Amino acid sequence: MPHSSEFERLRVVLVAPRNPLNIGAAARAMSNFGFLQLRVVNPYEAAFREARSAVGASAVLARTEIYKTVNDAVTDCALVVGTTTARQRELEAPLLQVKDGARKIRGRLRSGGVALLFGSEKRGLSNLDLSHCHWLMRIPTREDHPSMNLGQAVAVCLYEVARETRPVAPKERVRLARSGEVERLTRLLFEALSASGYVNPPSAAIKEERLRQLVRRLRLSATDAPVWLGMLRQILWKLHAASGSPDTQQ
Amino acid sequence: MPHSSEFERLRVVLVAPRNPLNIGAAARAMSNFGFLQLRVVNPYEAAFREARSAVGASAVLARTEIYKTVNDAVTDCALVVGTTTARQRELEAPLLQVKDGARKIRGRLRSGGVALLFGSEKRGLSNLDLSHCHWLMRIPTREDHPSMNLGQAVAVCLYEVARETRPVAPKERVRLARSGEVERLTRLLFEALSASGYVNPPSAAIKEERLRQLVRRLRLSATDAPVWLGMLRQILWKLHAASGSPDTQQ
Repeated sequence: MPHSSEFERLRVVLVAPRNPLNIGAAARAMSNFGFLQLRVVNPYEAAFREARSAVGASAVLARTEIYKTVNDAVTDCALVVGTTTARQRELEAPLLQVKDGARKIRGRLRSGGVALLFGSEKRGLSNLDLSHCHWLMRIPTREDHPSMNLGQAVAVCLYEVARETRPVAPKERVRLARSGEVERLTRLLFEALSASGYVNPPSAAIKEERLRQLVRRLRLSATDAPVWLGMLRQILWKLHAASGSPDTQQ
Repeated sequence: MPHSSEFERLRVVLVAPRNPLNIGAAARAMSNFGFLQLRVVNPYEAAFREARSAVGASAVLARTEIYKTVNDAVTDCALVVGTTTARQRELEAPLLQVKDGARKIRGRLRSGGVALLFGSEKRGLSNLDLSHCHWLMRIPTREDHPSMNLGQAVAVCLYEVARETRPVAPKERVRLARSGEVERLTRLLFEALSASGYVNPPSAAIKEERLRQLVRRLRLSATDAPVWLGMLRQILWKLHAASGSPDTQQ
């Protein structure tokens, strides 16, 4: 299969999966389509142990990494994409059909790591999980029965990412900042807003999740990110210094 | 969902399936993508009984028809398509990639019944089964691990048949913020950086022009711009208030 080094850059992230059969099925589909990097966030422990013995995906499962939080699992990825049935929630992030999203993902794999998130079988991705995503992707399903089995959803998404392995004209040449850096910026900004009274813990004018989305929509480049971090640190230092807070060291 | 009457003409035919979970998964994927006609040839009886109770596919399973032979199951279909990993056998029938085959199937559904055959989990379709097929279709998988799970293979094939029936997703049309607003943001930020000591008029750590470029590269949307302006105003107010500057009115 071509482009395997690019495929290596895709991290399939299962968030809080419950059923070992689904973890095994996801790993098998990954192996079928040549994506070998599985990350599991906060799985039911017994489920993960059982999945390890699943047929036909041992190579993927042997190197699967386990994380405590979504934030930890996506920190080295420049693009974070969530999957959703897009029914229940008010989504702020852009929502793409899987075929359009997959094309974007293919393009971005040429230059950096991409995380593709799948939520738990019962509830999908939470709003907190979604706030880490740059955009969302959905498989077009029937309105009367939109919710797919997890293993099948993974198979369809990966099939679509692998579908056009022929090179498309390269377009996007800005290297975007990694998730870890964007998250650091989000935290600093949140802190600055708290210190300024814009955010008030009990009745937050803007919730941290919304702020995270707002920052992610900026499409911060890898080159500019450190500059923004530096500016925010300075502002924050001044805010703390002025209010006599002890936290004046950056 | 559009074309549902055409989708009714597709018969998904599982030949000698062994695992009730796979029968249930196939039925669920069918329901997700709007194909409701499942036929099962010579299943393990216990497996089929168990599958009937599968979650999320009861409507499909309730009307599933059982046949003794492939011949009986495809007799009312004008086109019969087999699925295969195309490894072991010498195939006489033409072999198409699933995306090309799916397009053909869509075309034929406009005028008549089409049967899409999937073999058993262990052995796939037999040569006898294949002899009923006009042509064959395969999902492109990795050479080292070509064989897909049955439920996932059904999901990918049906996804591909349904793939082009929907109106194309509208392209991302984020309306960007106007220059005036971006400039206002730039000024506020510059002011905040001055108040924080990040910018020093004589030996500016960052010149205003560079800051302007930095802000413009963010691709700020028209919807988000006022939120950013609001946040910056608040931070600036706090910076001024703390330093006892007279300019605390916004």
